[in-house]
Amino acid sequence: MKLSQVGELPLLEMVRKRFSAKAAGLVLGIGDDAAVIRPEHNTLLTTDMMVEGVHFDLSWTTPLQLGFKLVSVNVSDIYAMGGKPRYVLLDFSASRTCTTEFFDRFFDGVHEALKTYGISLIGGDISAADRIMLSITAVGSAKKIVTRKGARVGDRIYVTGALGDAACGLELLRKIHKPIAFGRTRPKGLSLSWQTVAPLARRHLMPLARDPVRFASKATAMIDISDGLLLDLSRLCGESGVGAQIRAADVPVSDALRKAASYLNISCLDFALSGGEDYELLFTARPKTEVDAVCIGEVMESGIAVIDERGMKMNISARGYQHFSLQG
Amino acid sequence: MKLSQVGELPLLEMVRKRFSAKAAGLVLGIGDDAAVIRPEHNTLLTTDMMVEGVHFDLSWTTPLQLGFKLVSVNVSDIYAMGGKPRYVLLDFSASRTCTTEFFDRFFDGVHEALKTYGISLIGGDISAADRIMLSITAVGSAKKIVTRKGARVGDRIYVTGALGDAACGLELLRKIHKPIAFGRTRPKGLSLSWQTVAPLARRHLMPLARDPVRFASKATAMIDISDGLLLDLSRLCGESGVGAQIRAADVPVSDALRKAASYLNISCLDFALSGGEDYELLFTARPKTEVDAVCIGEVMESGIAVIDERGMKMNISARGYQHFSLQG
Repeated sequence: MKLSQVGELPLLEMVRKRFSAKAAGLVLGIGDDAAVIRPEHNTLLTTDMMVEGVHFDLSWTTPLQLGFKLVSVNVSDIYAMGGKPRYVLLDFSASRTCTTEFFDRFFDGVHEALKTYGISLIGGDISAADRIMLSITAVGSAKKIVTRKGARVGDRIYVTGALGDAACGLELLRKIHKPIAFGRTRPKGLSLSWQTVAPLARRHLMPLARDPVRFASKATAMIDISDGLLLDLSRLCGESGVGAQIRAADVPVSDALRKAASYLNISCLDFALSGGEDYELLFTARPKTEVDAVCIGEVMESGIAVIDERGMKMNISARGYQHFSLQG
Repeated sequence: MKLSQVGELPLLEMVRKRFSAKAAGLVLGIGDDAAVIRPEHNTLLTTDMMVEGVHFDLSWTTPLQLGFKLVSVNVSDIYAMGGKPRYVLLDFSASRTCTTEFFDRFFDGVHEALKTYGISLIGGDISAADRIMLSITAVGSAKKIVTRKGARVGDRIYVTGALGDAACGLELLRKIHKPIAFGRTRPKGLSLSWQTVAPLARRHLMPLARDPVRFASKATAMIDISDGLLLDLSRLCGESGVGAQIRAADVPVSDALRKAASYLNISCLDFALSGGEDYELLFTARPKTEVDAVCIGEVMESGIAVIDERGMKMNISARGYQHFSLQG
């Protein structure tokens, strides 16, 4: 059924019934002019948009995946501050031809993500538009926050997992050009095994934000990798007033990425250094601190350099995804 | 200059420099993965979207007016809970042909509204899209919140000012079909004086949210009138499990509305009862409480009725603006 046949109030009622869970610190959830919370510590607030045709393509993205990813992307920003995600507010605008089935599956994805991260939907807005435009504001809490500013010369640089998978997954999805239901569909027309394609596609479609609880107390600065390692690293370094040196050989890369990158004839390292949307965490810690993550380099006085196995500077510039950039 | 010639990072830098003010309770503002606040009391959170072609028409809306209104609409929801607005986060997506001048004037409007309400911009997101889509999350605080649920039979019903002006202003703007710079331009082609047109157009283009500080402690239930008196009243009554009776003659209407409605050949009462976007507050209070607002009726057991001067029920249904409604 089309949303236009349902009306806004029944839709709101549907969302409200579905997301009426009690949560710690929540005084008032969906249904009034504003939600009310009673926070304990520092309260973290972040917002991220996803616009149809810009951030996602419905040719190969299911509504469930979209809902899941929207939450993950915002939760990742809370984690990147050393915080614990608590609540989200959701803005949803969709065309009048959007179906209730789409809406329902989308909220399945939101619901799955809320469960995954242990958080609650406490408010939002629904509107008409001619494209799907989504926006979430995530609220988190933290006793101690980790900003982008604390990196000092000599600190080690860490990432929480393999990089480049999401960007490579997107390249594959552009070729497959249809939705993937994990565990069922197997793409045709690619001479790559499902074991190679699935984890890469999943990393783009349903990324999992990384909880920094194991190391947040040791991190001197932190950011999540949404726009590519080099670009986000240069942001962190810019805020801290330092530079960085990365060892290319130490940047973690998955077997699936190696196989798919070779198939696509694109350098594996290009994906890992400049590919966006992995939502791994990038952080720095004092040397000699024991940290459960992958060390990829050191904080330097200035500049961002990538060195090869012989210690030579590679000729790589900090690229990554920027809206309104000239690259288009 | 087009935004696409500037890039996202310089735009963010521009916004950051401009909105870097210190604010009470603000630990960390724009520039990291999330903003950080340290709230004292109940923290209120609300979000509202504005989509080009749905919520505003650039044929007659200047970017300054748009920025101002976006903030007002969200602040109004905080006021409607009896809260004090504190901070906003702003999502801005615009087409690649959008100019830096537009962006700049838009932020002039945001800035003017922030000053008006004494609040700070602490975060947000900028993205490309093919239309302008805006979303704000407003954060407020309140020692005591006023929900929609507290109205009891016998309570008096109040509004804070004249209703219908914004909806009538929109009708006039549709005819004028070009931007109005207040204090300068005078529309041609309408046989109405500027003194009549200006306040109505302004109420649609740059509404001022109403601070309930004078009466919030006395209000038993409250909502802001964004979608029309009858629709918002029925929401308040629905949440409180009561009905209401409104005296048509007591609903405050401006002289400008009387003149313009007569010119448009539309009933003044239609605008006042069903016109949206006035952002006046609608609230209830116990009888015999002294309240500095206009009493328009009483809370009843059930139903929503409007009575004329002879005490007869008028044949009016609760209409108002609904997204995805069949009215289109």
